[in-house]
Amino acid sequence: MSELRQDIATKRWVIVAKERAKRPHQFLKQSTVQEEPDHREDCPFCEGNEMQTPPEVYALRNGSEPNRPGWKVRVVPNKFAALSPSTRWEGVQSPDIFTTISGYGSHEVIIETPLHSQTLATLPEEQVSLVLQAILQRMRTLAQDNRIAFVQVFRNHGASAGTSLVHPHSQLIATPIVPTNIREEVEEARRFYDDRVTCVYCYLLEKEQAEGKRIVLSTAQYVVLAPFASRFPFELMILPRRHRSSFVAEARPEEVTALADVLRRTLLLLYRAANNPDYNAVLHTAPLRDSCMDYYHWHIEIVPRLTTPAGFELGSGIYITTAIPEETAGYLREQAQQLGI
Amino acid sequence: MSELRQDIATKRWVIVAKERAKRPHQFLKQSTVQEEPDHREDCPFCEGNEMQTPPEVYALRNGSEPNRPGWKVRVVPNKFAALSPSTRWEGVQSPDIFTTISGYGSHEVIIETPLHSQTLATLPEEQVSLVLQAILQRMRTLAQDNRIAFVQVFRNHGASAGTSLVHPHSQLIATPIVPTNIREEVEEARRFYDDRVTCVYCYLLEKEQAEGKRIVLSTAQYVVLAPFASRFPFELMILPRRHRSSFVAEARPEEVTALADVLRRTLLLLYRAANNPDYNAVLHTAPLRDSCMDYYHWHIEIVPRLTTPAGFELGSGIYITTAIPEETAGYLREQAQQLGI
Repeated sequence: MSELRQDIATKRWVIVAKERAKRPHQFLKQSTVQEEPDHREDCPFCEGNEMQTPPEVYALRNGSEPNRPGWKVRVVPNKFAALSPSTRWEGVQSPDIFTTISGYGSHEVIIETPLHSQTLATLPEEQVSLVLQAILQRMRTLAQDNRIAFVQVFRNHGASAGTSLVHPHSQLIATPIVPTNIREEVEEARRFYDDRVTCVYCYLLEKEQAEGKRIVLSTAQYVVLAPFASRFPFELMILPRRHRSSFVAEARPEEVTALADVLRRTLLLLYRAANNPDYNAVLHTAPLRDSCMDYYHWHIEIVPRLTTPAGFELGSGIYITTAIPEETAGYLREQAQQLGI
Repeated sequence: MSELRQDIATKRWVIVAKERAKRPHQFLKQSTVQEEPDHREDCPFCEGNEMQTPPEVYALRNGSEPNRPGWKVRVVPNKFAALSPSTRWEGVQSPDIFTTISGYGSHEVIIETPLHSQTLATLPEEQVSLVLQAILQRMRTLAQDNRIAFVQVFRNHGASAGTSLVHPHSQLIATPIVPTNIREEVEEARRFYDDRVTCVYCYLLEKEQAEGKRIVLSTAQYVVLAPFASRFPFELMILPRRHRSSFVAEARPEEVTALADVLRRTLLLLYRAANNPDYNAVLHTAPLRDSCMDYYHWHIEIVPRLTTPAGFELGSGIYITTAIPEETAGYLREQAQQLGI
């Protein structure tokens, strides 16, 4: 019997089509792990090819010169930037109903390692920690610009997740508006807080821990779970235990280190137990200039691209899935133990 | 210079990345038109294979027996139904925050023609009209069930739009809830009405006609346009001139005939001038039991799948497009004239 499920945090519905449900391993494609060399002459993100990207805006270096070899993490403007700080700021133009804003903002690539052959899942924890520090640093800098309302951090892994470049990288886009999805998520969290005087994510965490069956990994500071109303097979959420609306504000160094650990392990689990699926990872955090301290709670969503959303999903916003989150979590928990992740 | 644009009806933003914009024809893939026979032994939707589908719930026949050859349009439950009327209705189960509804509803396939070789774009107008009549008939029947809140009608064309079956078909899913996307769209329309005491779609139509540059086709009853804030290259909207919130209620026979004409021409234009792209078409109509007569306005959205949404789109809901709607409309207008569509 199929079942509709509602996500308490967003009020989105999904349909879990149980009678045609597949076992977790049936979703997996042939492993796409391809041996890559540590360095490629023609890759703009490889060491020694620094001149093939726009000049860096930030880098973690051991005293080496900018835009030269000798870096650990490098942040550069996207060569095909969707938004740019060099666009003239003209504010909102609203000739009646056709509202536009000039494309002011920033679109940056975080090159996560000089090693072409790796991916975030296979890097040492210390390197993942450096990547997170670089992202935090860029978000803090961009937040100082009053024209920037939000910074969306994301990672596209693999062709069906929308990337063509193999070299490990994340991206961020700083926008002059708060995106609709973020606004709605924050708004829903506020409604829950109005009703129950508690953060919906804190409440969810408590209930998920009590039930236990959707939890994949659990550390002192984070919980990784297969959401009750997962839209996609192998969808995962990394939820920090400590309530904080913003990933940027009040981030403690030990939380960043602990996130590097849990993020690396989560991605390694997908890499090894789910045959390195293409995926999108997205940071959900409070808008830079909204005070939603009490009711919003930052988190990371990881969405493998094993299925194709079609007309029904596009129209209704309801996703049909044939993966049962409790089974996915059980499978991944077991694999984590077997693989020592 | 890139530009953010807001859709007045939904308040969604897009980024039109103008400096890396491509000419309309540059988005087109190699034509995927493949010669198919009129009949295939192994196709469950072909005439003579009626026993390979679940028993039909509706058909347009010339006196022939149900589930036998001799039909023009046939509606059958989806063999892998996401929702089913045979599921026991148990209402909403809400143990604290994990809300579920048993999968009551209906998931049906509208087989649009006995001819395997065709697609909606290449069928005669009269046949498209029969397809629309069958859809209307099913929507009216399903609306009589008080447990059904909404009927989502959609069409997936091609593998990257999520279909594996070539034989021309549309689908509908009747849900016991109003989907979040629909609720939000109706809600936004209500806000606009509260502000300006006019329907946002009627207002948009007036402004679009005044500007003219995004209009692709224009008939006595319908306007086809490339939306100002298009999310995808070659995205199109079919907007009826007459204000009506629901596609089902008060549909006049001549409006259905006129829709068959404009829908067929729009799809034929994509088929011929845009190399038969994979696409999703989605009917947007009022929930069955909401009275949003004054402020909502039904329409059809057609979304070719020429690009892959990635992490940024997933997280923010903002789509980045390198297609300029005014150029797409210009290209299609010109092609429509040249091809006599």
